[in-house]
Amino acid sequence: MEKRKKIWLLDSTLRDGAQGEDISFSVQDKLNIVQILDRLGIDYIEAGNPGSNPKDLEFFERVQALHLNHAKLVAFGSTRRKNEAVEDDRNLRSLLEAQTPAVSIFGKSWDFHVTEIIHTTLEENLRMIEETVAFLKRNGREVIFDAEHFFDGYKHHPEYAMQTLFAAERGGADSICLCETNGGAFPDEVYRIVSEVVKQVSVPIGIHTHDDGGMAVASSVMAVEAGAVFVQGTLIGFGERCGNANLSTVLSNLQLKRNYECIPPENLHKLMQSCHMISEVSNVQMNKNMPYVGKSAFAHKGGMHIDGVNKAPSSFEHINPESVGNTRRFLMSEVAGRSTLIEKIQRVDAKICREDPVTAQIIGQIKEMEHQGYQFEGADATLEMLIRKQLGNYHPFFKVEKFKTMGEQQNGEENPSASAMVKVVVNGQSEMTAAEGNGPVNALDSALRKALERFYPILQTVHLTDYKVRVLDSRDRTASKVRVLIESTDGKEFWTTVGVSVDIIEASLDALVASIEYKLIHSSYYNADSYRMQQKYRGDAGRYC
Amino acid sequence: MEKRKKIWLLDSTLRDGAQGEDISFSVQDKLNIVQILDRLGIDYIEAGNPGSNPKDLEFFERVQALHLNHAKLVAFGSTRRKNEAVEDDRNLRSLLEAQTPAVSIFGKSWDFHVTEIIHTTLEENLRMIEETVAFLKRNGREVIFDAEHFFDGYKHHPEYAMQTLFAAERGGADSICLCETNGGAFPDEVYRIVSEVVKQVSVPIGIHTHDDGGMAVASSVMAVEAGAVFVQGTLIGFGERCGNANLSTVLSNLQLKRNYECIPPENLHKLMQSCHMISEVSNVQMNKNMPYVGKSAFAHKGGMHIDGVNKAPSSFEHINPESVGNTRRFLMSEVAGRSTLIEKIQRVDAKICREDPVTAQIIGQIKEMEHQGYQFEGADATLEMLIRKQLGNYHPFFKVEKFKTMGEQQNGEENPSASAMVKVVVNGQSEMTAAEGNGPVNALDSALRKALERFYPILQTVHLTDYKVRVLDSRDRTASKVRVLIESTDGKEFWTTVGVSVDIIEASLDALVASIEYKLIHSSYYNADSYRMQQKYRGDAGRYC
Repeated sequence: MEKRKKIWLLDSTLRDGAQGEDISFSVQDKLNIVQILDRLGIDYIEAGNPGSNPKDLEFFERVQALHLNHAKLVAFGSTRRKNEAVEDDRNLRSLLEAQTPAVSIFGKSWDFHVTEIIHTTLEENLRMIEETVAFLKRNGREVIFDAEHFFDGYKHHPEYAMQTLFAAERGGADSICLCETNGGAFPDEVYRIVSEVVKQVSVPIGIHTHDDGGMAVASSVMAVEAGAVFVQGTLIGFGERCGNANLSTVLSNLQLKRNYECIPPENLHKLMQSCHMISEVSNVQMNKNMPYVGKSAFAHKGGMHIDGVNKAPSSFEHINPESVGNTRRFLMSEVAGRSTLIEKIQRVDAKICREDPVTAQIIGQIKEMEHQGYQFEGADATLEMLIRKQLGNYHPFFKVEKFKTMGEQQNGEENPSASAMVKVVVNGQSEMTAAEGNGPVNALDSALRKALERFYPILQTVHLTDYKVRVLDSRDRTASKVRVLIESTDGKEFWTTVGVSVDIIEASLDALVASIEYKLIHSSYYNADSYRMQQKYRGDAGRYC
Repeated sequence: MEKRKKIWLLDSTLRDGAQGEDISFSVQDKLNIVQILDRLGIDYIEAGNPGSNPKDLEFFERVQALHLNHAKLVAFGSTRRKNEAVEDDRNLRSLLEAQTPAVSIFGKSWDFHVTEIIHTTLEENLRMIEETVAFLKRNGREVIFDAEHFFDGYKHHPEYAMQTLFAAERGGADSICLCETNGGAFPDEVYRIVSEVVKQVSVPIGIHTHDDGGMAVASSVMAVEAGAVFVQGTLIGFGERCGNANLSTVLSNLQLKRNYECIPPENLHKLMQSCHMISEVSNVQMNKNMPYVGKSAFAHKGGMHIDGVNKAPSSFEHINPESVGNTRRFLMSEVAGRSTLIEKIQRVDAKICREDPVTAQIIGQIKEMEHQGYQFEGADATLEMLIRKQLGNYHPFFKVEKFKTMGEQQNGEENPSASAMVKVVVNGQSEMTAAEGNGPVNALDSALRKALERFYPILQTVHLTDYKVRVLDSRDRTASKVRVLIESTDGKEFWTTVGVSVDIIEASLDALVASIEYKLIHSSYYNADSYRMQQKYRGDAGRYC
């Protein structure tokens, strides 16, 4: 096999990505994301526009203290103002003050934008590009020239669009990135235009696409096939409007399917984790269906697909999910048949087979609960607890005997007060306690943990990471059932439990109890002391074995 | 301009879409979706597999009562079992019993699947295809042959893959759809292979792609450019793993950018609404970034982009958003500058300008609230109320004087009990009331409405359609702030309000109050009686004008 061709990646999550709806980064968020991208092996990290956003200046100061192993930081700005000297341009000074090894400079390549949006002459625009690039080169920076709206420009007036690239080349740009800013181009157009450009320009060419036509990834890939060696995007597709090219998809496509190297091959298995960390830092739910790295990307639901994958994974999987750090999942559903469930049951007890009466019993129980509004696809921990209970492979660690929550606010008080009382029973010993909290669910959570930590100190390591409420039948009225999903962690593993009730507090308690049970049952298998205790219980009550 | 070339669309939301994670349709859901797709002008609706799923049989019975104006219903099944006569095949009988004008039949085109997954001979597989198609044709059906894994098959063994198509052609198939089942092919491969196929097969060729490489839309578009005349997908991209080709994107690309006609042009403006209705029926949140039809698809956040769009929409928009029923939005953010806000302020009071001191005051208030955890991007109604309050263009319709919620459950009781008391004051008259509910938030909502309906009967038309809770700083612990988003409707308009507090009940109350205020203020402008009342208040208290 011939040597893989290197493709350089620039991630703009912190700059173009921050233009996406619902995205807002604190300085600390940005520092965290820089480190995630660096560890993954991204070559360039475009981190902000110091001229337009004061928060970015603070970031560029603080980022100097980070030691990056791989990535170069890039500050982003525009060509100088029209009819001014580069030396007088405040934004260009901010760019230099950011002290990054590289800078991206965007300039106009579409004549319509030059005359109608920034209101200057075509000649002045060329001078703005050339002089800005040359100024930054004189100041020792690696310069990436972003040719904004290049494709629209080229389609309307190819000669002028090319002149803007030549101006950047004369200025000494290290690379030129062709931007498909409005996101509406087709991959065949992108392929054709990039092919024509690379013949005429001697500096390395990059591609920057947006997803307004749902084809940003394809256009990036086609640009590379046409000779681009540099791809700009955002790791999980954040960006204005429909988002930027999703770099995790682009790099997986190029590196796993065609002979390119985008990140160090030994880092590819970190891809899914890196993507999920960015989504976590950004506080934005990652699209489950995201290619390669989404939670559903290798989730099979159809019975025939599941059978096929069991016989040969390549029958319904385009790559090995582990190569990007993802895992195969079989989903529960009425279409899935029994294979999925058998696989999940066997993880708890490898001896159970398809024909065992308990299998039918578990399926019946799941159907009944699904009918009530439970959904197990997203709540593996609750499903596991259900299977354990049906298999008798479970003893209750505790019982909630009763609870009461109260909330009130008198006019004029700053904060409302919420409190909860709870009584639990563990091994015949009861413990009653109360706690205050930020609302009844939080008060109940605190009281429950407080009561249980006396018996199970390991629960001190557990905390909730997400709490989601979904109103079922929301097409009707509010007074319908709610489903609560709780994600918990002990700092190592994450698990999700679900609770359903007409009462949000009860649904939350249901999910909280399942989360705690899950932790206790897993610790008891791996912790010698608890394991003995578990064995003792098994001995005490034969029906649990 | 030459006449547009017709491209036929088959929507498989109800069949392949139902294989997506989190997707589960009731029979009524399916009937609703059929009508949405029919009204949009989709040509074929693949509605289920009557052989594999008993729920689908009920659907096919009930769907007969619907009068469809445009679409043909399609039942889906596989080729006959190996080494059996077509007449004896139970699944094929179910297919006929579904009584649809058209059927889709999938068969194996990849030799690896024939020998390794269904364990039969290459010859028998060809007979299975030809005989199944011929049987269905004899029974008067329009037959679509789905060549499963065609692209993988063609890459491994092109002659055999082509033989499977010839078998379907001999059987009398009306069209043949090339399926990119594993979703890993590149658009250039798809283009090349479709180009080769159309030269050799005389029946119309279709394309069916999956999004595992993030390029399903591009591959569908390229297949059409190569000569396919028929596209299968799902309207908003539902489907197993990463989903099927998103038909809303494919059809917009083809119809708005190239010279094809996929749906009747007069229906195109219904596209966004149709997509949102499907997401609503499916109870699945639509991806905001979805091309063309997503809520963010024309949402601008960067200050320069907003300025550009204000000068000329085409500067940062690839199409006119209204052509697909979407709208342009300017988002609030620290990057956006003042243009966005001015636009929103002017919707309330057209006389306010950028330099008014009140503008700075509103910006200050928004920044402060964002700092507290509010997010206005998704909560236009709350933002509008905030602007009204700052402009003095608002009088409080009511005041919540105090409230109290209680919830408790004794061991053994079936259901927990929740109740709320609330005291409101309207025009100096107070009303205290109490209500029970499914949890404290619901009880409080009921009590509040009950108390207010005495004064404002119009509130009887309002109900909540969605209730979402997001824990802020969920990276820390649960005891952090929560943000509650409430979507309300009066049956015509939808609006969203937001509440933030450390207490979930208080945050909910905050959003509930804003939702009710929004309804009252809007009714009072459009309802003569209330309008006079509003004017009276204005007279009473000059500071409100």
